[in-house]
Amino acid sequence: MLDKAKMWTNQRNKELRDRAAKVIPGGMYGHQSTAILPDVYPQFFRRAEGTRLWDTDGNEYIDYMCAFGPNLLGYRHPSVEDAATTQQRLCDTATGPSEIMVELAERFVSMISHADWAMFCKNGTDATTMAMMCARAHTKKRKILAAKKAYHGAAPWCNPYVAGTVPEERAHMLYYEYNNPQSLEDAFRAAGDDVAGVFASAFRHDVFEDQELPTPEFAQSARDLCDRTGALLIVDDVRAGFRLARDCSWSTVGIQPDLSAWGKCIANGYPLSALLGSEKARAAAQKIFVTGSFWFQAIPMAAAIATLNQIQKTDYLERMEKTGAMLRSGLATQASSHGFSLRQTGPVQMPMILFDDDPDMRLGYGWVSEALTRGVYIHPWHNNFICAALTENDVKLTLEITDEAFAALKKKRATLGPVPQLAARFARLHDESLTAAR
Amino acid sequence: MLDKAKMWTNQRNKELRDRAAKVIPGGMYGHQSTAILPDVYPQFFRRAEGTRLWDTDGNEYIDYMCAFGPNLLGYRHPSVEDAATTQQRLCDTATGPSEIMVELAERFVSMISHADWAMFCKNGTDATTMAMMCARAHTKKRKILAAKKAYHGAAPWCNPYVAGTVPEERAHMLYYEYNNPQSLEDAFRAAGDDVAGVFASAFRHDVFEDQELPTPEFAQSARDLCDRTGALLIVDDVRAGFRLARDCSWSTVGIQPDLSAWGKCIANGYPLSALLGSEKARAAAQKIFVTGSFWFQAIPMAAAIATLNQIQKTDYLERMEKTGAMLRSGLATQASSHGFSLRQTGPVQMPMILFDDDPDMRLGYGWVSEALTRGVYIHPWHNNFICAALTENDVKLTLEITDEAFAALKKKRATLGPVPQLAARFARLHDESLTAAR
Repeated sequence: MLDKAKMWTNQRNKELRDRAAKVIPGGMYGHQSTAILPDVYPQFFRRAEGTRLWDTDGNEYIDYMCAFGPNLLGYRHPSVEDAATTQQRLCDTATGPSEIMVELAERFVSMISHADWAMFCKNGTDATTMAMMCARAHTKKRKILAAKKAYHGAAPWCNPYVAGTVPEERAHMLYYEYNNPQSLEDAFRAAGDDVAGVFASAFRHDVFEDQELPTPEFAQSARDLCDRTGALLIVDDVRAGFRLARDCSWSTVGIQPDLSAWGKCIANGYPLSALLGSEKARAAAQKIFVTGSFWFQAIPMAAAIATLNQIQKTDYLERMEKTGAMLRSGLATQASSHGFSLRQTGPVQMPMILFDDDPDMRLGYGWVSEALTRGVYIHPWHNNFICAALTENDVKLTLEITDEAFAALKKKRATLGPVPQLAARFARLHDESLTAAR
Repeated sequence: MLDKAKMWTNQRNKELRDRAAKVIPGGMYGHQSTAILPDVYPQFFRRAEGTRLWDTDGNEYIDYMCAFGPNLLGYRHPSVEDAATTQQRLCDTATGPSEIMVELAERFVSMISHADWAMFCKNGTDATTMAMMCARAHTKKRKILAAKKAYHGAAPWCNPYVAGTVPEERAHMLYYEYNNPQSLEDAFRAAGDDVAGVFASAFRHDVFEDQELPTPEFAQSARDLCDRTGALLIVDDVRAGFRLARDCSWSTVGIQPDLSAWGKCIANGYPLSALLGSEKARAAAQKIFVTGSFWFQAIPMAAAIATLNQIQKTDYLERMEKTGAMLRSGLATQASSHGFSLRQTGPVQMPMILFDDDPDMRLGYGWVSEALTRGVYIHPWHNNFICAALTENDVKLTLEITDEAFAALKKKRATLGPVPQLAARFARLHDESLTAAR
């Protein structure tokens, strides 16, 4: 139980940041860097269990980021941990894969309607890069279409920034507007008869933006354009997979892709990603050379089998929908009672929470900071994540805290200034020499 | 103890292969696919402990592949497993890194002479790709020089095959001959004033070839050319790191790189790789955007700290050198007593074992097959690996088995035909439309 009487402190986090600054470039890097989050956000953590996270100073949080997705069932879910521990006693990284790799592939393929085969890897970027290679090998064409601002990984071809990359690495990338069939058709036309594959995120879940579910018209037009040209349709389900459905996320709009990329939560936090494909792409998948030192380790595969069990056999999804809806409606009521208006978009189990009338995000930053020091970890510009361990009591406790946070924000409202670390971010996003030309 | 009286069988492996063929393209993929190994090589395994590996049929092997490198101290080394288990109870993949990330970075940097900072990732390819991006961000130049046939990963820019890639992804790659200063200088000249970085493997450890340690002249010329032009020198220590030295491998020839890529064994099999860099590359490392869903998981970092402890505080390296030398001299004596001649190249702890007068490798394939069914797992065309758990008794037992294998090979010699799966491989290697143009 969150101890609300305990004082929030961050001395040890500060000391660790100072030490980190000496031996890690920038003190931290990548999506888990807190460099442009509010100052109070801790960088380093000690413990995680269920819905809870403890930072290095011992502060406890109800965690709505879920490790940016991997935590689907609750941190350290007993059945997943048991499977991992049992496998650990047998073997993990060895000279060949464990026999359970076959069981996992059979299991995963049986659950995903479009899939006839699976390949496992480590990073989400591995899965999306494999999808791109597979599409090119299958079609013998070159162009890859992706939605503007969509995140498909951090490799040079899909990196949201250009530092350290060369233009040639994106030579055959073309961009369309998500949920805009005309824009997609225009991109096909611009590519000539050279489209290898079309990437589409499960839904529009770009940072700093309202989220949007795919429209059936858009999904159908993507399917039709691919069928007409022979290009492969690729759903990037790395972030959203198994949070919208027990199948590929586009099953919710009745569309089957040719390839789907998975990662994050498929082993409830153990490192595993995957590319799943339909029969027609199998020969191409067999041609490409892809591998990694740890792709065949067995512990994450055992954890994945246990996770898929929970996905198939429990109401994990319905519970996330229920607690997510409870949180969303509670926040909306609170916000308006304190004189604020929220834009809560996307599926309730992956909520983006932005403030209306907050062009430089000072309200959002103020509010999440107040919530954080009271024990609720919410991200100000990335979608949040609900996990199946979240209970109605957790949501009630969260809402008690967010209510206090809204009240504190209201008091401070007139004195809030622009957010310095975010001003730099916005400047960077708008500097075309630094961000990908799309 | 290996039970030499037990019959070798492979029924279950055959059944698993049949099942795998349905749900995994080609039944398996990547470096652990046995598609072009001798028919008797098992694809799927059940257990690993110390120096031993058990396949899915229960056959026990003394394993000289060590998971293609990750197994440095012995599978399931007690101190590494304890550290992993202890960390597992705290947290693994969470919303931010564990506090032990800082301790690991400090520890690693303190051990590697050239390094002032560290960044952690998952695949070896992540580390080499980060090195490339870092070199480009630092120099604002484009060209990357790598040795012909060297393996630096499976991403499109460094993939040994071209299926699914486009030429633009390699637009700025140039190739030189390992250990040939003139060839390296020629590559610099061909690149004009546009060299961002030079990749060099720890030593020449290409597949199907004799290995070669770097000459001090070559290493010095690489350092000088980089210093003269401002390019970054990158030692790819992913495969060889900590098997040649307790420092970067090029410390053995007195040369400090600017960047070094690590992976495989740094956490004794837990999934972790790293890019280490010197002060001058820090600002560039801070500029590039690189990340992955599982890069900050804590269990592999705990395992890495425990592994570095063993590296610093034990004679693990000297033991590998001793058992490796014992194996090499034993094999040489046996081979000649049976009328064969071996080319055993590279450091004894990473031995490449090829037969003289064996242009189509039928002798090599015959011999490793005889050894395998008797309980010794040796790779016919990739370097093998010694781990620190290997004892002199293990080597003695190995030599008993290899002696029988030489005797059996001698009997069969006249009846050995070409190896069908290898003929295809050789054809593929020589088909320029399929392999990277280098």
